[in-house]
Amino acid sequence: MADFTLTCPIPIAQYPQVLLAHGSGGKLMHNLIEKMIGPAFSNPLLDSRHDGAVFPLNGKLAFTTDSYVVHPLFFPGGDIGRLAVHGTVNDLAMCGARPLYLSAGFILEEGLPMATLWQIVQSMRAAADAAGVQIVTGDTKVVDRGKGDGLFINTAGIGIIEHDHVIAPASVRPGDVLLLNGDIGRHGIAIMAVREGLEFESAIESDTAPLNGVVLKLLDAGVDVHCLRDCTRGGVASTLVEIAEAARARIDIRESAIPVREDVRGACEMLGLDPLYVANEGRFAAFVAPEDADRALAILREFDDSAAIIGQVYDDVPGRVTMKSRIGASRIVDMLSGEQLPRIC
Amino acid sequence: MADFTLTCPIPIAQYPQVLLAHGSGGKLMHNLIEKMIGPAFSNPLLDSRHDGAVFPLNGKLAFTTDSYVVHPLFFPGGDIGRLAVHGTVNDLAMCGARPLYLSAGFILEEGLPMATLWQIVQSMRAAADAAGVQIVTGDTKVVDRGKGDGLFINTAGIGIIEHDHVIAPASVRPGDVLLLNGDIGRHGIAIMAVREGLEFESAIESDTAPLNGVVLKLLDAGVDVHCLRDCTRGGVASTLVEIAEAARARIDIRESAIPVREDVRGACEMLGLDPLYVANEGRFAAFVAPEDADRALAILREFDDSAAIIGQVYDDVPGRVTMKSRIGASRIVDMLSGEQLPRIC
Repeated sequence: MADFTLTCPIPIAQYPQVLLAHGSGGKLMHNLIEKMIGPAFSNPLLDSRHDGAVFPLNGKLAFTTDSYVVHPLFFPGGDIGRLAVHGTVNDLAMCGARPLYLSAGFILEEGLPMATLWQIVQSMRAAADAAGVQIVTGDTKVVDRGKGDGLFINTAGIGIIEHDHVIAPASVRPGDVLLLNGDIGRHGIAIMAVREGLEFESAIESDTAPLNGVVLKLLDAGVDVHCLRDCTRGGVASTLVEIAEAARARIDIRESAIPVREDVRGACEMLGLDPLYVANEGRFAAFVAPEDADRALAILREFDDSAAIIGQVYDDVPGRVTMKSRIGASRIVDMLSGEQLPRIC
Repeated sequence: MADFTLTCPIPIAQYPQVLLAHGSGGKLMHNLIEKMIGPAFSNPLLDSRHDGAVFPLNGKLAFTTDSYVVHPLFFPGGDIGRLAVHGTVNDLAMCGARPLYLSAGFILEEGLPMATLWQIVQSMRAAADAAGVQIVTGDTKVVDRGKGDGLFINTAGIGIIEHDHVIAPASVRPGDVLLLNGDIGRHGIAIMAVREGLEFESAIESDTAPLNGVVLKLLDAGVDVHCLRDCTRGGVASTLVEIAEAARARIDIRESAIPVREDVRGACEMLGLDPLYVANEGRFAAFVAPEDADRALAILREFDDSAAIIGQVYDDVPGRVTMKSRIGASRIVDMLSGEQLPRIC
């Protein structure tokens, strides 16, 4: 494992910035991989330096990918590297899988400070260790100045499903209880605050976190989990609309039950945002059999005491999400039609 | 499967270009995925529209990734989509794996013509079908105008290894015979010709091609394959230096044996390029046991009659590549130290 107290292994005096040649397949790229990226992520599979990682694996697998283009690269509570590890770990967790192996593809812009790359690579390693996954294969490309934006990261991931639940939108059924694992809106607000130069009394930090621990605990406890989905781009609202459509069911939520921190609510009001549409990076919706709802809630609360039961599934209107407001009125919750928060992840 | 005679399923009159909102998690993104990208790649795993694809798989797996930033997006013999499928299929083939499943991550620049995206998505589907792989999971992000370059694609892939060979640089041993599956330099020259506005008597087309067919044929025939590596960025020279270093052996090649087409040789001279360093996208180096060399060559020639035996492995100097010139002199072949051809893949 890389010693994170070390300074950047590429001599910054000589190469203060990423050059096009760092992506050309020649000596500089070789150095970048052999001296910085390879050692930082080091593990036996990656260290074989082949065109891919080779490992034995048997069972039901999950495979997923996401690219990360978040702007800015660093924000309260995280950075693009941390996000790139958590995001793919979480997509695997949402399939009910135990995440095992990640790939990392970097698209660097010529001129990116080498120290920035080093910091992000270290952050990815730390996040991978914390989530219990290994980065086993990767790729680095460099685009010319003005044709990128610092860096973009793609991660893909493989996980193994060690239970018999079919966790998917199609498994959602009437009567299922909907839980959220905690308060919403922090990731989007943390990003917006940096972009807009806003200051709050106390900093609002991104909720970015690996979710495999809590999901596996639900499954190990035998909770009858029907569907899981992390509430990233488009927020809780868009996530639920997608699931309602795929499940051909109505999801009814109670506004008063949805956990939103006061400072986040205030920031949303100031920015003209609805927290229901703001991106999260450590929050997920869980649809469970009604008889297991209380047990599921207790487990979620071991990880975050703001977790809550927020709604239920009905069979009367397929593909619809409805919300009961605090004053008892009911309205349809739709997907966002325009653009709310670009490049949030 | 998508009907490729259809026009773009996103109404181009209404959305002639990609908007930031096509990546925001709202309605436009949902439409882009549900109407264009999803149907184009359609297969049962992708169609489940979950956070990842879930499938059973047992055995020794290979896992790899590459991002594609080639400029321009279209070039003689291919496009970025075709390249993105072939590149990852080939990395899996180089591990001796049968490629099965691919992911596709798109980073689109605001303003990308919708028709361009449609054309590339169709090209990816066609390439995947031809290579016998499925695109089972994906992601789409949009960056603001001027922060990308049309589109970048990441593919990751999973393949299965159905034999007992350990195909890796560490398996290369003295006496091994080195083969190339055909003439080199066409991909790089095809790209450079477009960039520089060069015209040749007959167009030089990229050699981009899936290599899983020929590799599996070698393995099925029982050829004792020790290492395989596609000669992409940095060309044949960089590929061989990497393998010589990893194998701690000397690789000696004969200049006169290396197949280079006359038109490619002429173009290289005009552009001041050494074909040994020019990128290929359908060429690979194969290290096989000496007793199987002729049989391997015969199989390679079934696919391309320019395939050749170009060298052999020795144990006298670890980590070195040497080349005997046409006039009998021997010189060291090194990695490129500067930048030859940026954004070639």
